[in-house]
Amino acid sequence: MKIIKGAITAAKGFKANGLCCGIKRSGKPDLSLIVSDIPATAVGVFTKNSIIAAPLVVTKKKLRNQKAQAIVVNSGNANCFTGKFGLIYAQKTTEVIAGLLKIAKENVLVSSTGIIGKPLPFQKIKKASAALVKGLGKTKSHLAAKGILTTDLSTKEIAVQVRLGGKTVKIGAMAKGSGMIAPNMATMLAFITTDTKMSAPLLKAALKQACELSFNSITVDNCMSTNDMVVLMANGLAQNKSISTKGKDFDTFCAALKVICLDLAKKIVKDGEGATKFITVTVNNAKTYAQAKKAAFAIANSNLVKTAAYGSNPNWGRVAAAVGSLGISVTENMLKIKFSSFAKKEIGIAVDLSLGSKTATVYTSDLSLDYVKINGRYN
Amino acid sequence: MKIIKGAITAAKGFKANGLCCGIKRSGKPDLSLIVSDIPATAVGVFTKNSIIAAPLVVTKKKLRNQKAQAIVVNSGNANCFTGKFGLIYAQKTTEVIAGLLKIAKENVLVSSTGIIGKPLPFQKIKKASAALVKGLGKTKSHLAAKGILTTDLSTKEIAVQVRLGGKTVKIGAMAKGSGMIAPNMATMLAFITTDTKMSAPLLKAALKQACELSFNSITVDNCMSTNDMVVLMANGLAQNKSISTKGKDFDTFCAALKVICLDLAKKIVKDGEGATKFITVTVNNAKTYAQAKKAAFAIANSNLVKTAAYGSNPNWGRVAAAVGSLGISVTENMLKIKFSSFAKKEIGIAVDLSLGSKTATVYTSDLSLDYVKINGRYN
Repeated sequence: MKIIKGAITAAKGFKANGLCCGIKRSGKPDLSLIVSDIPATAVGVFTKNSIIAAPLVVTKKKLRNQKAQAIVVNSGNANCFTGKFGLIYAQKTTEVIAGLLKIAKENVLVSSTGIIGKPLPFQKIKKASAALVKGLGKTKSHLAAKGILTTDLSTKEIAVQVRLGGKTVKIGAMAKGSGMIAPNMATMLAFITTDTKMSAPLLKAALKQACELSFNSITVDNCMSTNDMVVLMANGLAQNKSISTKGKDFDTFCAALKVICLDLAKKIVKDGEGATKFITVTVNNAKTYAQAKKAAFAIANSNLVKTAAYGSNPNWGRVAAAVGSLGISVTENMLKIKFSSFAKKEIGIAVDLSLGSKTATVYTSDLSLDYVKINGRYN
Repeated sequence: MKIIKGAITAAKGFKANGLCCGIKRSGKPDLSLIVSDIPATAVGVFTKNSIIAAPLVVTKKKLRNQKAQAIVVNSGNANCFTGKFGLIYAQKTTEVIAGLLKIAKENVLVSSTGIIGKPLPFQKIKKASAALVKGLGKTKSHLAAKGILTTDLSTKEIAVQVRLGGKTVKIGAMAKGSGMIAPNMATMLAFITTDTKMSAPLLKAALKQACELSFNSITVDNCMSTNDMVVLMANGLAQNKSISTKGKDFDTFCAALKVICLDLAKKIVKDGEGATKFITVTVNNAKTYAQAKKAAFAIANSNLVKTAAYGSNPNWGRVAAAVGSLGISVTENMLKIKFSSFAKKEIGIAVDLSLGSKTATVYTSDLSLDYVKINGRYN
């Protein structure tokens, strides 16, 4: 596996674009488009929040046939808590793009992030759509990555290539997210494109696996957004022998996809609101993976642990109390806690539960004065 | 029911004292004692953290017979994560006090709060014990309330009287707690004394009920301490007809106990680390009480809601997202959110789930710059 240049357009047959359609007052890019030359196999994972935004309702429905050819994404407005018109505008956005691309509207997905509870400025999106489509290109991936940002300080992009059955396949991706701030919800979005040929069920399995160890293993403030979405499109243009059973090729693809997702997930944590430290929490020797992950999240979400990290204060009592609060049958004598230097920018916390042999790792940022400032003053 | 003067010594037959035995470097009181003239019926509720401190192990064991005559409490050291010697010292503390009071050592309870992981300075406690016992008095309740504080800015005391079957009975109490900071864990402790005559099972039922709506309905930072303890002693000296069945007298007592516990719980939240606002979260029309409480805690523990309160920023999107994150089947149209003025010191958040008829209320403080400063810099 090799890290390569480019991002969302690295794989064969993918183009992208990004521009400012006027949703953001700042004049920064706020509308992005990713298009495949041919319809691709597509799968997604979505927020578990029961309050979900209109574009998720529309996109989930469209993904039932596991096909997609384009994804249109706006930032600056989440199109959430927007009632009937929110759904209509999300649907209409996909129709406008489909019309301009001359492709089936069923194959255009839609995604949004930004302020909630305000009507989507659909006319602005409609007006800018022709220019958005006209400007599509292989070299526009960075612009597309910019168009999906909200409070993020930097774009999050990566691409890799691997050999599958004698062919080179590429996977490219972009993401956004830096903690959830509302009414601007800095939702987590990730879009992944590949020219790999693979069956939809295996593609879904690969994405779920990769998400579990990456996007589902990070926390900035333990607040779940209404707009979170990860979509993976595979157009098959690399002409590899289609992967339809588990085996060596599937494993190679999964490993590459994990690298992509973990890289993006870590970039999201590092860009966490007010973050001054990157914290890796590993729980070892748990009874089950679920127990290890639960304990790791309890530590990662503890405000006392997070402020201790901010203050470079290696405070094991807070870690012990966080683990103990879960009701896991662990005693004082069984619990082993190790810290790497708390003075550094990257901190490691390793906990041994002495209950079994399972391990889980999660990533988080510290709780800083700036987090409180950003989220207290924001309006 | 009437609020009366005095606190932990308000009820007939209770004396108390507090002094500085030298555990706290500040020279502030750090050792307190509560004694009943005769053995009392006693019940307790304890932290659910699986890592529990030595004094809790000792006190839980002693309370098996539901009798107690004295409680000795030190602050400045939690006697937690202190191994075999922690248990020995906790036990020995009760023996020293029992010897001086000439009462059964089984009837002396022990409690600690403060730094964890450091040996309890038992010799200091032993040395000061004679003076502690000698100075016991009806007028020393405020000194006793001071001796149990750690990072608290003020003592927490209250007493009430009610009529039960033609007799006046009194209930007095003191508490400490202001968020959990470790290695100093600002544990939640509460001690309640009454001259009511009541059977142990009913006393336990009354305490559990009162705790559910008070100490178990507050959160400062969602961090559970290893030392939390609430103990209620009833010595029967009011000579009321013993309450051994549920009925009017039991209900009157329960109502008074709830007033006591809720008052102390609110004082703990108001004294929360860095707190600038007191937030009451009420969830109405839930399917069950448990669901209402879970939703209320999700809101009260959301860092985004807490920073919004700090910034006087009435942000309903954050409340909606917190409720949605629980996986409750509530949709955009069902959820109603009401705020009282966010600019005031006391904030109300009311949420209607439209799922049933149950209500729960929890109390919390905001997440301020001072919370991060206190917990980041503390060592």
